[in-house]
Amino acid sequence: MKRIGLLTSGGDCQALNATMRGVVKGLANNVKDLEVYGFMDGYKGLIYSDFRMLTSRDFSGILTRGGTILGTSRQPFKQMRTPDANGLDKVEAMKHTYHKLRLDCLVILGGNGTQKTANLLREEGLNVLHLPKTIDNDIYGTDMTFGFYSAVNIAANTIDCIHTTASSHNRVFIVELMGHRAGWLTLYAGIASGADIILIPEIPYSLEHVIEAVERRRERGSGFTILAVAEGAIPADIAAMSKKEMKKAMAQITEEYPSISYKIAADIQKATGMEIRVTVPGHMQRGGSPCPYDRILSTRLGSECAQLILDEEYGYMVGLDGTEVKKVPLGEVAGKLKNVDPECQEIIDAKRMGISFGD
Amino acid sequence: MKRIGLLTSGGDCQALNATMRGVVKGLANNVKDLEVYGFMDGYKGLIYSDFRMLTSRDFSGILTRGGTILGTSRQPFKQMRTPDANGLDKVEAMKHTYHKLRLDCLVILGGNGTQKTANLLREEGLNVLHLPKTIDNDIYGTDMTFGFYSAVNIAANTIDCIHTTASSHNRVFIVELMGHRAGWLTLYAGIASGADIILIPEIPYSLEHVIEAVERRRERGSGFTILAVAEGAIPADIAAMSKKEMKKAMAQITEEYPSISYKIAADIQKATGMEIRVTVPGHMQRGGSPCPYDRILSTRLGSECAQLILDEEYGYMVGLDGTEVKKVPLGEVAGKLKNVDPECQEIIDAKRMGISFGD
Amino acid sequence: MKRIGLLTSGGDCQALNATMRGVVKGLANNVKDLEVYGFMDGYKGLIYSDFRMLTSRDFSGILTRGGTILGTSRQPFKQMRTPDANGLDKVEAMKHTYHKLRLDCLVILGGNGTQKTANLLREEGLNVLHLPKTIDNDIYGTDMTFGFYSAVNIAANTIDCIHTTASSHNRVFIVELMGHRAGWLTLYAGIASGADIILIPEIPYSLEHVIEAVERRRERGSGFTILAVAEGAIPADIAAMSKKEMKKAMAQITEEYPSISYKIAADIQKATGMEIRVTVPGHMQRGGSPCPYDRILSTRLGSECAQLILDEEYGYMVGLDGTEVKKVPLGEVAGKLKNVDPECQEIIDAKRMGISFGD
Amino acid sequence: MKRIGLLTSGGDCQALNATMRGVVKGLANNVKDLEVYGFMDGYKGLIYSDFRMLTSRDFSGILTRGGTILGTSRQPFKQMRTPDANGLDKVEAMKHTYHKLRLDCLVILGGNGTQKTANLLREEGLNVLHLPKTIDNDIYGTDMTFGFYSAVNIAANTIDCIHTTASSHNRVFIVELMGHRAGWLTLYAGIASGADIILIPEIPYSLEHVIEAVERRRERGSGFTILAVAEGAIPADIAAMSKKEMKKAMAQITEEYPSISYKIAADIQKATGMEIRVTVPGHMQRGGSPCPYDRILSTRLGSECAQLILDEEYGYMVGLDGTEVKKVPLGEVAGKLKNVDPECQEIIDAKRMGISFGD
Repeated sequence: MKRIGLLTSGGDCQALNATMRGVVKGLANNVKDLEVYGFMDGYKGLIYSDFRMLTSRDFSGILTRGGTILGTSRQPFKQMRTPDANGLDKVEAMKHTYHKLRLDCLVILGGNGTQKTANLLREEGLNVLHLPKTIDNDIYGTDMTFGFYSAVNIAANTIDCIHTTASSHNRVFIVELMGHRAGWLTLYAGIASGADIILIPEIPYSLEHVIEAVERRRERGSGFTILAVAEGAIPADIAAMSKKEMKKAMAQITEEYPSISYKIAADIQKATGMEIRVTVPGHMQRGGSPCPYDRILSTRLGSECAQLILDEEYGYMVGLDGTEVKKVPLGEVAGKLKNVDPECQEIIDAKRMGISFGD
Repeated sequence: MKRIGLLTSGGDCQALNATMRGVVKGLANNVKDLEVYGFMDGYKGLIYSDFRMLTSRDFSGILTRGGTILGTSRQPFKQMRTPDANGLDKVEAMKHTYHKLRLDCLVILGGNGTQKTANLLREEGLNVLHLPKTIDNDIYGTDMTFGFYSAVNIAANTIDCIHTTASSHNRVFIVELMGHRAGWLTLYAGIASGADIILIPEIPYSLEHVIEAVERRRERGSGFTILAVAEGAIPADIAAMSKKEMKKAMAQITEEYPSISYKIAADIQKATGMEIRVTVPGHMQRGGSPCPYDRILSTRLGSECAQLILDEEYGYMVGLDGTEVKKVPLGEVAGKLKNVDPECQEIIDAKRMGISFGD
Repeated sequence: MKRIGLLTSGGDCQALNATMRGVVKGLANNVKDLEVYGFMDGYKGLIYSDFRMLTSRDFSGILTRGGTILGTSRQPFKQMRTPDANGLDKVEAMKHTYHKLRLDCLVILGGNGTQKTANLLREEGLNVLHLPKTIDNDIYGTDMTFGFYSAVNIAANTIDCIHTTASSHNRVFIVELMGHRAGWLTLYAGIASGADIILIPEIPYSLEHVIEAVERRRERGSGFTILAVAEGAIPADIAAMSKKEMKKAMAQITEEYPSISYKIAADIQKATGMEIRVTVPGHMQRGGSPCPYDRILSTRLGSECAQLILDEEYGYMVGLDGTEVKKVPLGEVAGKLKNVDPECQEIIDAKRMGISFGD
Repeated sequence: MKRIGLLTSGGDCQALNATMRGVVKGLANNVKDLEVYGFMDGYKGLIYSDFRMLTSRDFSGILTRGGTILGTSRQPFKQMRTPDANGLDKVEAMKHTYHKLRLDCLVILGGNGTQKTANLLREEGLNVLHLPKTIDNDIYGTDMTFGFYSAVNIAANTIDCIHTTASSHNRVFIVELMGHRAGWLTLYAGIASGADIILIPEIPYSLEHVIEAVERRRERGSGFTILAVAEGAIPADIAAMSKKEMKKAMAQITEEYPSISYKIAADIQKATGMEIRVTVPGHMQRGGSPCPYDRILSTRLGSECAQLILDEEYGYMVGLDGTEVKKVPLGEVAGKLKNVDPECQEIIDAKRMGISFGD
């Protein structure tokens, strides 16, 4: 007999349903009586005891379905210790729900912030397991997060489409991709679709070098240039400022422009006189059906998570290490971000081929 | 023996290459000596005699390739009668190139503006045939233009992706789709992907009705609402103004917001307090590989165009009428726009199902 | 107040769910009390009174879902008048179910056979409406059936994939596509993906001409040839036989080979010595998510069907005529097949471009 | 100054062009004078000195193109030491071509057989580098081969399509996937798309267990069952035979049936009386545009290969180890196959979820 809780928290992404299916199918075949409680809209459901019991029917046919059957919401970790509007202690409320339902384990699907709260619940004595979800691939302790490759597919497909129109019109195109703090998605989509310039948060760019790269292509007879730009791309001069000044400088930009990409577009246009267009696929990147890579990863993470529950091993994130799924102590990874190392092999590979990072 | 010229003009779209392949393959199998001159970058190539001779190798493997192997540019019809910076008479220059190469026919792929210039060349005595290209499907005299369904696929896929994330987060999403003057793309993509509200240029919207539609869904328990909004969506009060005042009012909006969608988002947010996101797939809609529908349409239009050349029948647009390809006298259609009739069957079908058009 | 029954019969295809959603949404917004009875597994559910009541929740999120939420089965028209194993009169049983539930109308989604039974029920006094479903596009009285373009997409994509491998290896490839009696799917997929030879039931082929076409390509330096072959492709000499002899001759072929394509492959290999491969996408062609074209068509057909129910107009198929949805009296179309006319424009267009049909 | 040769050998797959682009772009940006010789149709081009010089234009726009711009052919390793029909010593001929062109390095893209010949050339004193290409992912010494994930996508998509039709009709479906010796593709595609039974060469199946798995699903109310079966699936009783008898037994099967899948279908049908369909996507699995995963992998492998050439480090395969590209001495890996370990984590993960492997 096992009683488990499931919740999905933070920005949604592909393969959340596939992962939950993995957990539940992995248990259902190995446990006599299984009760699965699905908490609605992330930690909110746990706090306010909003849940429904899930049966195997709920997990049938959801391997390929995007979104999450449980709904999700953003519950900032910072506010977890703050009482809600009615004075409710959220952490106590979550513990209360957990104990009331006599759960054996709470399986939590989410990104960095979600992971921190999961770790907090672990410290509070609950049995938790965390499954690393995010299109950003920025979770420390796992080589890969589910959602990432589905988002790479959408982002790369966007650049592919832009490629044909850019080359027909001899234009400069900026494709702005998701990623405020980590550049994995932009880096991978940029390499996958042959972007000429890739700007990511981890490598502050010099506008001068970006313009040089555009000009160099024009001189060589390539009429068009494609830039893959992360939402969190940052000019080197601003990156060198103090945190306070940096915030101010970035705020100034977003006051004037919808996003950093539009500022870069304006600057390049001014410097080169070329026609520039900006495309922002936006939330599309976290939607739609998960790609087979993510479905396999999610299924395996979910199934291994089930084994941990069977073995009563709690307090871990279930991550990927090379080709193997491994458990990682939550206490060792919570709160850490996995950023792109500017000296990593992917960057060196890309630079060798002439891709500019604006540095 | 036939000598033909090919050019693609205006904004690019999918299936331009497929169409040209249809023309050339249709001729090559039926003419002893065929010379094909490809003019670079639209009418520019014709004006400045910038062309290259194309062989069957150029047309191999391009059925599925997006963009145009000839390049394209926008050459406003209005400026055709105005000399260029060096005082060159453009129309005479085009005629000169045409006669110099002793062309039997000039095959012109393009949208409304392109068609007007094609008709002008016809009036000037050149043998021209026009093939209706545009993702907007707004060319008068043909049921369908090539590029349209490929763009519908991309637009609908965008909304599909947004659907999963919208439903997971209980958010209102606006997907802004191409179409400044005609709403076909937004109408079709909206129906295809189950949008709740569709706003198009032909049906000015009342903000009040849009907000009511959003509220009604919330009351019925649907946590999310998806709006498909054309670039040219227009508030009813502004649409009722004089042309001059309308322009001023719209300019005011685009000064404050990146586009009309952002204004609508701000207004709904203010009125309902709901979280709203805007997604703009932009130029992606005219890029990428043409869908099979477009490849079939393009191949047939191209092949029938070849027959007209074989029959020495010039001065036509080659369009679709039901399931048949038909020739349409250019003089009868040039300068006319095919807009969505607010009383057309598609609109009535959609309204019957509860889709709101904000009117 | 309306009580309607829904059933899907015959081989499944894409957009069955989308069509039912169209009917129900079109009614739900215009009728105070709506009761929807879904019969399971086609006419079987109607005969044996196996149904469940469907609510709006059943129709949420199914616009893009393949298959049918009601299940389907093949119930040959010929056996409808024959009692079942227990001596039950099927037609009387269907009438009994219909009257017992006091249905206002029975909405039937299916192909040719299904349509004949629908017409029989109409003759028996039931209110029926038929919606034309089939990947074969062979239903008389409508320009288009839903499922067709989704199948064309899969079939064309198959040939696209084969194209790259064929050209890398200089091989002859046969792609066998669905269609025992009608060649629409093979014709359209073949044109869409640049097949060199297209063999369909309506144009019996001469093996000699097929081999000539392969040889001609080899002589011109094209190392590979792609044949799109319908399941029902037939050699001209066999097509000229009496019906009885034809059946015998075809049976002999399928005894020796898995299908006609393998026989053609063997014959070409023998005659030319070239390496030949056969690919059979099979049932894949009727599966997966419907394409946007089909979702729009289905939604419109369903919505117009709802209007007919509101207007109490029964006994029709709801079909497409050009760009308009129209009602067609069932009695005028039931039992008729829409075949490819060997002289139709599509065939002429294709032949002009050098595509061989083996005739 | 560098002179390199490129060749693609064995069955084609996706991302061959992307990989070559990686090598050439990686060199072009770092070498003053670069000469690239492309040998046509695999080793054949090297043997018979059939090549063309490639320029940067040849590598523009090929990142997403399937197949290989060089063509390929199968040249069995076993016959490399045997003179050709004209008595030509193939190995000497390859060495001759290599030295005649004064190549610095020969970059060879191919699978297991290709690798063995590459190693032979290394032993003969040529500078070679090998890039691991195959949809089978069975090359020893690398975690991943390019082509694999593109094939997984096509195979999984096939099963996805079959899924909707299987569930609508309550049928058993067998999808036969490529893989005569290794089951990676079938295993991954099966997990990705929720197959119920997966049969691979590495785990001989008991027909009894397969039938039990089908029956068990039927008893539980799941009307349909999907089997993903590798071409090389083998019954346990035959697998237990001596090599000679095994060959004889398998030959007997393929004499009676098109492939092992049809035999399994016949056996299940006989035992259960259920309707069974077989789908064979075949060569489709190695065609079409490479997926973003493969494009990234290929680009990185190619770029790292360029670095080895710059560093004059030869005699390696360039493979993936976890997330890093690493060089592996050809002598250590040539001739070894990477099979699915029946006790590997993927298998255990799948079995935990109730997937049957027939063992």
